[in-house]
Amino acid sequence: MKRFLDLADLSRDEVLDLLALARRLEAHPEPRALAGKILGLVFFNPSLRTLASFQVGMQRLGGSSFVITPGQGTWQLETRTGAVMDGACAEHIREGLPVLASYADALGIRAFAEGKDLAHDVAETSFKAMAGVVHKPLINLESAVNHPCQSLADWKTLDEVGVPQRAKFVLSWANHPRVTPIAVPAATVHMAAHRGMEVVVLRPEGYALPPAIMDKARAAAAASGGSVRETDDRADALAGAHVVYAKEWGSTTHYGDAAGDAALRAGLKDWCVREDWFATAAAGCKFMHCLPVRRNVAVADEVLDGPRSIVLREAHNRLTAQMAVLYRLLA
Amino acid sequence: MKRFLDLADLSRDEVLDLLALARRLEAHPEPRALAGKILGLVFFNPSLRTLASFQVGMQRLGGSSFVITPGQGTWQLETRTGAVMDGACAEHIREGLPVLASYADALGIRAFAEGKDLAHDVAETSFKAMAGVVHKPLINLESAVNHPCQSLADWKTLDEVGVPQRAKFVLSWANHPRVTPIAVPAATVHMAAHRGMEVVVLRPEGYALPPAIMDKARAAAAASGGSVRETDDRADALAGAHVVYAKEWGSTTHYGDAAGDAALRAGLKDWCVREDWFATAAAGCKFMHCLPVRRNVAVADEVLDGPRSIVLREAHNRLTAQMAVLYRLLA
Amino acid sequence: MKRFLDLADLSRDEVLDLLALARRLEAHPEPRALAGKILGLVFFNPSLRTLASFQVGMQRLGGSSFVITPGQGTWQLETRTGAVMDGACAEHIREGLPVLASYADALGIRAFAEGKDLAHDVAETSFKAMAGVVHKPLINLESAVNHPCQSLADWKTLDEVGVPQRAKFVLSWANHPRVTPIAVPAATVHMAAHRGMEVVVLRPEGYALPPAIMDKARAAAAASGGSVRETDDRADALAGAHVVYAKEWGSTTHYGDAAGDAALRAGLKDWCVREDWFATAAAGCKFMHCLPVRRNVAVADEVLDGPRSIVLREAHNRLTAQMAVLYRLLA
Repeated sequence: MKRFLDLADLSRDEVLDLLALARRLEAHPEPRALAGKILGLVFFNPSLRTLASFQVGMQRLGGSSFVITPGQGTWQLETRTGAVMDGACAEHIREGLPVLASYADALGIRAFAEGKDLAHDVAETSFKAMAGVVHKPLINLESAVNHPCQSLADWKTLDEVGVPQRAKFVLSWANHPRVTPIAVPAATVHMAAHRGMEVVVLRPEGYALPPAIMDKARAAAAASGGSVRETDDRADALAGAHVVYAKEWGSTTHYGDAAGDAALRAGLKDWCVREDWFATAAAGCKFMHCLPVRRNVAVADEVLDGPRSIVLREAHNRLTAQMAVLYRLLA
Repeated sequence: MKRFLDLADLSRDEVLDLLALARRLEAHPEPRALAGKILGLVFFNPSLRTLASFQVGMQRLGGSSFVITPGQGTWQLETRTGAVMDGACAEHIREGLPVLASYADALGIRAFAEGKDLAHDVAETSFKAMAGVVHKPLINLESAVNHPCQSLADWKTLDEVGVPQRAKFVLSWANHPRVTPIAVPAATVHMAAHRGMEVVVLRPEGYALPPAIMDKARAAAAASGGSVRETDDRADALAGAHVVYAKEWGSTTHYGDAAGDAALRAGLKDWCVREDWFATAAAGCKFMHCLPVRRNVAVADEVLDGPRSIVLREAHNRLTAQMAVLYRLLA
Repeated sequence: MKRFLDLADLSRDEVLDLLALARRLEAHPEPRALAGKILGLVFFNPSLRTLASFQVGMQRLGGSSFVITPGQGTWQLETRTGAVMDGACAEHIREGLPVLASYADALGIRAFAEGKDLAHDVAETSFKAMAGVVHKPLINLESAVNHPCQSLADWKTLDEVGVPQRAKFVLSWANHPRVTPIAVPAATVHMAAHRGMEVVVLRPEGYALPPAIMDKARAAAAASGGSVRETDDRADALAGAHVVYAKEWGSTTHYGDAAGDAALRAGLKDWCVREDWFATAAAGCKFMHCLPVRRNVAVADEVLDGPRSIVLREAHNRLTAQMAVLYRLLA
């Protein structure tokens, strides 16, 4: 494995192999496996889990890392090809990223969607420009419409808590004070389909995921024997659910239009996941969220603090899953 | 030892044992003692000594660390139970801190007082909420009314420069352009009492330490054979002093009222420690300060640069004392 | 070697020795050479290459590092002697830097020019104040008028691509949206002269380097058999050039006067290095720049992406050259 950019680059069996490696490293730590190896971490956006877990992952395998935060201690980096750089960006990714790659054994890059033009973001225009100039092992730490590290951790978590392959997996939109990216829902719908689950995307009007995202998930479902459908009917979606995975995201019909999104969102305050959402769910239905989560806006305390929540396990599995990725890329 | 949150949690003999360990590690370094151990450092507030010395402490013992700064590269974290999180905080400590703890072998947390409600801060409401969700070894890197790492370093420094147990220790208020927390004076008055010294808190009207803080120090003095009193009479306080420990802090009668504090402070410009403060002190009287210090506002150059200042030794002992704490928690 | 503050502190033979060590460490890595050693890195200003390459350099030699950024996670530090500190700076370098030095085995400090008073900056007033309170090995990570790490990397790069000692080296001014420091041009003209090259400084009126800088370069040229001259005649400068080294810098006749500099600069948009600049250059003329570079403002894409550009090699040699410095200071 040379790059870890998209879970779709791996077959279902390759994902299972990677998760087996993750479990092996948990059971039998290899504290010198990456001795002398250095990971460069480039964060264009804030982070808690990714920032901590990648540093820890390298340390637990005997390697080390450094963190670069463009715009905060480091110059802002320009991504546009051919730009006349007379604005805020002092350096271009065409220099900045290859230089960092030349110091490190691998790079990880986090670069959220620009959130202006949906087609631009769905095409991963910026991340692809970055990946194109990095000639070292590369990890996607969350891009415009992907978050493969989160998806790998979630898959591992589903396995650990015994969710069957064919279970009903509901990805539900949740409320948030502001527009947020579609990276996690896009990655999650694909992951669940790739795992072979019965996937239902539950979201209000105006928040449908882009066709290219849904098509990709459907293709994964077709290969794995799962299914993917979408609905705005909460009762239909939640009935018999084995897993509810909540996530906030921005309107796709009002993409890049914060005011339009806010107007739409004003009527959606009841999209805060509460315990009564689970009344008709399957027994032992699990609750998942990638974190960070806005308590009592997106998800009520009663759910997050209740027994069905496995959000801390998901977050811990960021570390265990990513250690397998690092091992595969660098050992 | 599972946690290092308050020097008052340790008996005098336990403090002496910890300082003996610190001296042993200085004399006989153990560069592999914490091999493979990882410390997570969470800074809600700025730092120089704490930020550097904990990273170095782990490195000198063969371990490693990572730094998380909520609000700067990481989301702001909400601390209030039951909050409806529709404001600036994207994540709650109930998720953020357990996740970080699950990656690390121990956490250190710095979270200054909110400075609005004195009872809330004296009760350590926020820090206790944080400590309550961390189920790993935990270190207080400075909380609302405590700074045990500073106190341990100061106790070690007093020992090293030969200040006797029964010496006269004057904790003096000093001027500052703004309101600052009472964490260090609160920790210091207790530490000096716990060590068994004759402690005098010298402060102008309006800057008395809260009764709960003074009572805690008096209880420590009773156990160690020391004493604690407070005064606004500088001549009385400084006469015969063996140590003057200066610290800036905010008014407790105008707590949370910056304008009221400023009005009070306007007449207190002469609370800048100068060499003439030591005219009636004991021979060889030492000058201490936890740093950072506002030169020529809180303390004059002539004192900081003169022979009685041991502020750099105190700062260096942050490292040596904390290495003993890390060793005790993690070795 | 106790300090690495200025390439002029080393004789030409000493520079060659240091570069030989750099090549030896590339050919024969010594991953335990600095085991247990800790480098403190203090950045008063942004960085990408320096920030990453020093952390990596320590890691590749088995040591470690920590980063302190005054004003961002750490208090702002005052540099002025005798200051009454009632402003934004909470701590003085007289405390802050010795404390950090006492934790580490060596310090590196980056502190750009203040950009107000040319004489103050050319005299390295601030950096000398800092160096004066650090009693540990110290590295200049870029000061007001120097950048010895960049110069050492550039010298190594010139050697690697086979630029002869007596080649014609043109340091050319380039456009930029704002005033930038003269540290790199000052270091570069000296480095090229010290190496024994035929150095031409090409710059428009108002951008002459200060006499003290030029005199220092001329003294180096006299010792090495090289030469130094300056001109505003681009055709004259570029004819027969073996190397063009572009750099943006601020007006020295309008130093500290951003509006005056901007007025001067408004007529200088054609100082963006384009491929046609090389029409009369020597065959195989190389293009150098220290980075970061404003594409299509200072240098056109066609040059940076073309075959004569060795900017990425220079940047990579920041790491390889600095590892020799670290080894010399700490091994």
